Amino acid sequence: MNILVTLNSNYIKPLKVMLKSLFLNNQGEVFSIYLMHSSIRDDELKDMDNFVKKNGSELIEVKVNDEYFADAPTLLHYTKEMYYRLLAFKFLPQDMDRILYLDPDILVINPIRTLYETDISQYLYAAAFHDVITFKGINKIRLNPYRIEAYYNSGVLLMNLELQRLLIDENEIYRFVERNRSKLILPDQDILNALYSTKIKPLDEKLYNYDVRYYSYYKLKTNRVCDMDFVIRNTVILHFCGKKKPWKKGYKGKFYSLYKHYEKQALG
Amino acid sequence: MNILVTLNSNYIKPLKVMLKSLFLNNQGEVFSIYLMHSSIRDDELKDMDNFVKKNGSELIEVKVNDEYFADAPTLLHYTKEMYYRLLAFKFLPQDMDRILYLDPDILVINPIRTLYETDISQYLYAAAFHDVITFKGINKIRLNPYRIEAYYNSGVLLMNLELQRLLIDENEIYRFVERNRSKLILPDQDILNALYSTKIKPLDEKLYNYDVRYYSYYKLKTNRVCDMDFVIRNTVILHFCGKKKPWKKGYKGKFYSLYKHYEKQALG
Repeated sequence: MNILVTLNSNYIKPLKVMLKSLFLNNQGEVFSIYLMHSSIRDDELKDMDNFVKKNGSELIEVKVNDEYFADAPTLLHYTKEMYYRLLAFKFLPQDMDRILYLDPDILVINPIRTLYETDISQYLYAAAFHDVITFKGINKIRLNPYRIEAYYNSGVLLMNLELQRLLIDENEIYRFVERNRSKLILPDQDILNALYSTKIKPLDEKLYNYDVRYYSYYKLKTNRVCDMDFVIRNTVILHFCGKKKPWKKGYKGKFYSLYKHYEKQALG
Repeated sequence: MNILVTLNSNYIKPLKVMLKSLFLNNQGEVFSIYLMHSSIRDDELKDMDNFVKKNGSELIEVKVNDEYFADAPTLLHYTKEMYYRLLAFKFLPQDMDRILYLDPDILVINPIRTLYETDISQYLYAAAFHDVITFKGINKIRLNPYRIEAYYNSGVLLMNLELQRLLIDENEIYRFVERNRSKLILPDQDILNALYSTKIKPLDEKLYNYDVRYYSYYKLKTNRVCDMDFVIRNTVILHFCGKKKPWKKGYKGKFYSLYKHYEKQALG
């Protein structure tokens, strides 16, 4: 299975934890991990390569020359890395048909094959939207007049690379950014939703992009079906969304002990 | 290493979870699990035997004939199993020098060898006391005039069987129970503390008997040293004390996700 990750030096440790959880819960599978970056040091890259090899998979460097984005508009506080996951299809092997992008603030706690093999022949992506009422309302208003059915989270993206090569135009993306500078909060996610939301196949967030901040909300909404037992046995991807991260001091949350458990496995 | 567990049918699942966590975090070690019981069914015993074998260790049945306790005083709501861990030395091989008793409501999350090899040549037991202020005060008053230095928790007990054979008199235990019927709340733990507390080597509860209800208390008391990172990396035994248990519906707690993770590994 092809996995896409993008990275800067600050996220090396969380990335290892994410990958370790993927390997541990998908034993017998071999992964090709495509690491898209512009500025990782050689020793960091070598270390990551050893880590992936030791776990029986392979790491493939996808080095991005920033000159590629010379004409792309920039935003305050954001580097051109904001375009990486949307334009990854330009940098990946041209005969690759699909790849699963994963954020580093994730734990993969169950087998991922069913997600990976989701039928997306009619879609550019498969993704989950976080169906918390406030999200939807606010984001619909903010990104008007772009029609948004649901506000998809871009942390887990199954990509139909063949269709992307046909339908995604980088200039359209750049134009959108130019026109909406002042409104963009999470630029790549906003672009994804504004331009492509009708071409995204919705995934069940409780299985494939479980926002760990909303444990009680999920439980309530499912009449207690989605309790801790359900999550540990069925949820594939836990997503540590938001500013508070489980690798930082003083984090609190229902999945802190589990995160630290995987962190210990990953980092020793 | 010798591990002692006692069991009735209600605790088979938690016992498997506890043992699975012990095996997973002590790979390369072989354990002799002594299962002390009076009424486990043959099929349950066979199932437990398979489970332990599959994990590379051995199960040894220690069948207790309840006639042994014919003259022992009983208490309302308690079976004679309350005497098992205190008098285990009578039922175990007479040449065994030490064994580690573990409650089933425990997770073993790090290697146990250092605990197992603790020098207890001058003691009957090694155990931890839960140093929460209210515990100590209340229990000192309740079990007066028996001198109690600290109120030890009997859920994790490293036993010096050689010294126990010399110093522990079952009739002394029975007399104590007769005299203190009305005061005993947790009989085996009360007996342990009232009769033997000066002969118990204290263990660090944060490492060897971490009461999961007191995460914030431990953190506060250690000036934030004993945070989640510390616990996952250093604590050997997490103890799910109290009435609320993580295998029951509606449990809440800092270590719920971690417990469920091990439960999935143990029970499939």
